[in-house]
Amino acid sequence: MRIALVQFDASVGDIKGNTAKIQRLCGKAFELGADVVVFPEMAVCGYPPEDLLLKKQFLNDNRLAVEQLAGCSFETTIVVGFAETDGEQCFNSAAVLKKGEIKKIYRKTLLPNYGVFDEQRYFKPGNEPVVVEIKGIKVILTICEDIWQLEWLDELLKDYSNNDIILNISASPFHTGKIKQRQLILKRCAKHFNCAIAYCNLVGGQDELVFDGRSMFVDSSGRVLCQAKAFEEDLLLANISIDPSKKVRVEAVNPSDSSPSTPWDVEAEVYNALLLGTRDYIRKNGFSKVIVGLSGGIDSSLTAAIAVDALGAGNVVGVTMPSKFNSSETIGDAKKLADNLGIEFHTIPIGAVLDTFDKSLGDVRGWTKDGTAFENLQARIRGCILMSLSNQFSNMVLTTGNKSETAVGYSTLYGDTAGGFAVLKDVPKTMVYELAEYVNKKHQLEVIPVSVMERQPTAELKENQKDTDTLPEYDVLDEILKGYIEQEKSLSQIMNEGTPENVAKQVISMVDRNEYKRRQSPPGIKITPKAFGRDRRMPVTNHYTS
Amino acid sequence: MRIALVQFDASVGDIKGNTAKIQRLCGKAFELGADVVVFPEMAVCGYPPEDLLLKKQFLNDNRLAVEQLAGCSFETTIVVGFAETDGEQCFNSAAVLKKGEIKKIYRKTLLPNYGVFDEQRYFKPGNEPVVVEIKGIKVILTICEDIWQLEWLDELLKDYSNNDIILNISASPFHTGKIKQRQLILKRCAKHFNCAIAYCNLVGGQDELVFDGRSMFVDSSGRVLCQAKAFEEDLLLANISIDPSKKVRVEAVNPSDSSPSTPWDVEAEVYNALLLGTRDYIRKNGFSKVIVGLSGGIDSSLTAAIAVDALGAGNVVGVTMPSKFNSSETIGDAKKLADNLGIEFHTIPIGAVLDTFDKSLGDVRGWTKDGTAFENLQARIRGCILMSLSNQFSNMVLTTGNKSETAVGYSTLYGDTAGGFAVLKDVPKTMVYELAEYVNKKHQLEVIPVSVMERQPTAELKENQKDTDTLPEYDVLDEILKGYIEQEKSLSQIMNEGTPENVAKQVISMVDRNEYKRRQSPPGIKITPKAFGRDRRMPVTNHYTS
Repeated sequence: MRIALVQFDASVGDIKGNTAKIQRLCGKAFELGADVVVFPEMAVCGYPPEDLLLKKQFLNDNRLAVEQLAGCSFETTIVVGFAETDGEQCFNSAAVLKKGEIKKIYRKTLLPNYGVFDEQRYFKPGNEPVVVEIKGIKVILTICEDIWQLEWLDELLKDYSNNDIILNISASPFHTGKIKQRQLILKRCAKHFNCAIAYCNLVGGQDELVFDGRSMFVDSSGRVLCQAKAFEEDLLLANISIDPSKKVRVEAVNPSDSSPSTPWDVEAEVYNALLLGTRDYIRKNGFSKVIVGLSGGIDSSLTAAIAVDALGAGNVVGVTMPSKFNSSETIGDAKKLADNLGIEFHTIPIGAVLDTFDKSLGDVRGWTKDGTAFENLQARIRGCILMSLSNQFSNMVLTTGNKSETAVGYSTLYGDTAGGFAVLKDVPKTMVYELAEYVNKKHQLEVIPVSVMERQPTAELKENQKDTDTLPEYDVLDEILKGYIEQEKSLSQIMNEGTPENVAKQVISMVDRNEYKRRQSPPGIKITPKAFGRDRRMPVTNHYTS
Repeated sequence: MRIALVQFDASVGDIKGNTAKIQRLCGKAFELGADVVVFPEMAVCGYPPEDLLLKKQFLNDNRLAVEQLAGCSFETTIVVGFAETDGEQCFNSAAVLKKGEIKKIYRKTLLPNYGVFDEQRYFKPGNEPVVVEIKGIKVILTICEDIWQLEWLDELLKDYSNNDIILNISASPFHTGKIKQRQLILKRCAKHFNCAIAYCNLVGGQDELVFDGRSMFVDSSGRVLCQAKAFEEDLLLANISIDPSKKVRVEAVNPSDSSPSTPWDVEAEVYNALLLGTRDYIRKNGFSKVIVGLSGGIDSSLTAAIAVDALGAGNVVGVTMPSKFNSSETIGDAKKLADNLGIEFHTIPIGAVLDTFDKSLGDVRGWTKDGTAFENLQARIRGCILMSLSNQFSNMVLTTGNKSETAVGYSTLYGDTAGGFAVLKDVPKTMVYELAEYVNKKHQLEVIPVSVMERQPTAELKENQKDTDTLPEYDVLDEILKGYIEQEKSLSQIMNEGTPENVAKQVISMVDRNEYKRRQSPPGIKITPKAFGRDRRMPVTNHYTS
């Protein structure tokens, strides 16, 4: 029996488009001799469809799409994920299609409701295993989370021993380290049930999430036999057979399939996640071009470099908006970067507008040039310029703030946070440096000027300003942030690990009291185990101090 | 037995402050001769604490607070809601305290995970009923949602017949019509179990939610015997006894308690919800003053009037920022409103800044004054001015957009949407007019000039602009929006009810494609059955059309 795992980039809500794509990909799999063609979780409607699932019409449209796909199944079995309703309740289901009919439907039973997931908001759990026999091989259906808890799966399968292969369709989002976790889960599961696993994962960007694909076949010893591409659409084929000793055998059809034995390094993984996340957000939202404010600093340089890689140099516009507080070095570096990237570049000084604002505001007693208000105003003028160009030329503004800044609120709301998508929102500053080096290494060229990487970080909103005037050094800061945000450590735990009390308290308090800024910030790509956004839901009004 | 229901305004995360307040209120209830003093769901930590519940230290602090409260219980029974952990899992619990000890703990079993609620993200359900006998009266404990499904409660209580009174502690947020729904639920429950109900609800504003209090006692026939105040802290007392025929009797201790027989009209209810929601958001976030941009239109006029009622005239600053597109009438009305309200008022014309921006942007080929970009720029300049004053004087900017505008994206991101709190975010435009009339009626004075109410709505961002240039009349629009957003109607349903196809399609498409603006808008107060924000979670990237 030949199985094709088809990881494709489904668009949320685009049921017609996804269905047409699934049909096309089925045709390709048929040509390759597949007996079973498998598509990811919620392939029909994209994942996560969120509150679209509360619309009856949406669920009806899902059903119609599955019926249409059944019409293309003939002798080949198609397994496809969709949102199912029984008229009252909604299920996260996999349909088994053959000979023009919906033969069986499996309903996901373990519904994740943590982190970015809200599945219990929408779905009722199923409670019936579904086993199909294809060419004498017993295939058991599961969806994503179902195979993450063995005890539970044991219970579900207690009346179904001696299965040959577990088929799992997933929409498992990327974060660093996730692939190892997944492989471990699959290995454990394969060994426990002594059967092979065919794992088909979604690929593509959807708002804050990137699905990384990397579908795979695992044999009954837990070995990953072959793995599909990361961050790209792909089709992975394997032959499944039963050997004379009744043991299931899995053979990769293309031994050249990207080997799981050479794991990517973190920078390459994150960089490619950012590329795909950015490309899909821009294109799926109907844009082709983006604008980036270039300060000559490392965040905007990296953001522009990613945008060029994701969309092409012709689709990226750089704008530098100097004031008297910007050094000739940073202004020069912005220009140099734009030249290196080969992008359209504009210089729009903000001095005249700043002076006019200052004069108008000067009529209000108490207005002053010496303070945060005047600093923020500069950032907001830049936000206005970028948004004006965005509105005029229908380009999306990419914001450039990293996770460290976003965490402590080292940003101006409606200033540098103004834009449609925050590429580096979940990338800590220390990793920004690593990615910048990765970019230059990848291009074997100084795309991002070394001077940008070597300069002390500065917002340049007043004379001789440095980030470290108000923040700890970034390596110290990022360590605290990782503990507090990703690991939910308390103040005393962070202090016990060596951070001085005043520093720890200052950082935690900044994180807590800047929730309001994050609430109004654009979405960005999750790359760590805990990102801001749907992943971390903190009240704005919050008096808790640990 | 005398029960005191203490509805108080708990601050999320302020465990120390809430605990001190609970102690003080216990003292008051003791003086009034209460045998049982009852506090709302999650009284110790505020509701909803969201991801604070993922912090171990937070759960430990909850426990310590409950132990501290136990120390104040003496002969009186205290029932208080808190976030409980057994070391691994978390529960939404009610502690029964007496003689210095935690006597019993009831764990909520029905965990809402729809609308604004995410309880299954945090809590495991309990499965044990808790019955306490106080002065010979059998009291059964429940928490909020537990009494909303009778079938389920039947099952839980199957071994516990002949109870006298059900005690329910709640954190039930307000929306129009909710109080009727609640009374119906309590009536049904009382009759079904043939017992009295003591219902203690939270009061206060927390981010998007307002808890309206209105705790009540219901007798076994389902009659609401007495009800605590709406939108205010209050303490409601009743005596519970068993008559000779073994029937439970409830007597209000103060028959003067606000009677449930005179229901509020919708305008009064919504107005008071907006007052409390605004006051609590501002104060709990450490602000005392607010700034409002006054356009001379009805939304900003109503917002300013609410702010004055919530915070006092001395704490509200009005700023009008005219351009050449503003009529002398609207400029005059802004001034008149400020005079009527007695608030500080500034006029900051935007013409000079607009010209300077235009000149700077003019260097980019293709920039033009005739188009949306130039209109949006005006709104963004106003946003910059308000935010500059906010930063300079530590006042919070209140935004003025209503639900109709928010729904269709008739607003400028970082322009009129710039600010900390959106008072009218969930108030449809048609209701804005009703509330404006309510304000004048309430004050028996033309606080909001009649000319403001009678003028055709206009954004005044270009010559002779009217909202109806791009939108249907607001009564038509609001009807479509209610169907599409609150009732999840499809395009064809809306058309079947009489809306022309082109209008229905246009409105739905505007709602769908403006999710990105709402994602970056400030929080506002939920007053309808479905608000934007946590209540309606739509993907930004979304290709679905019904």
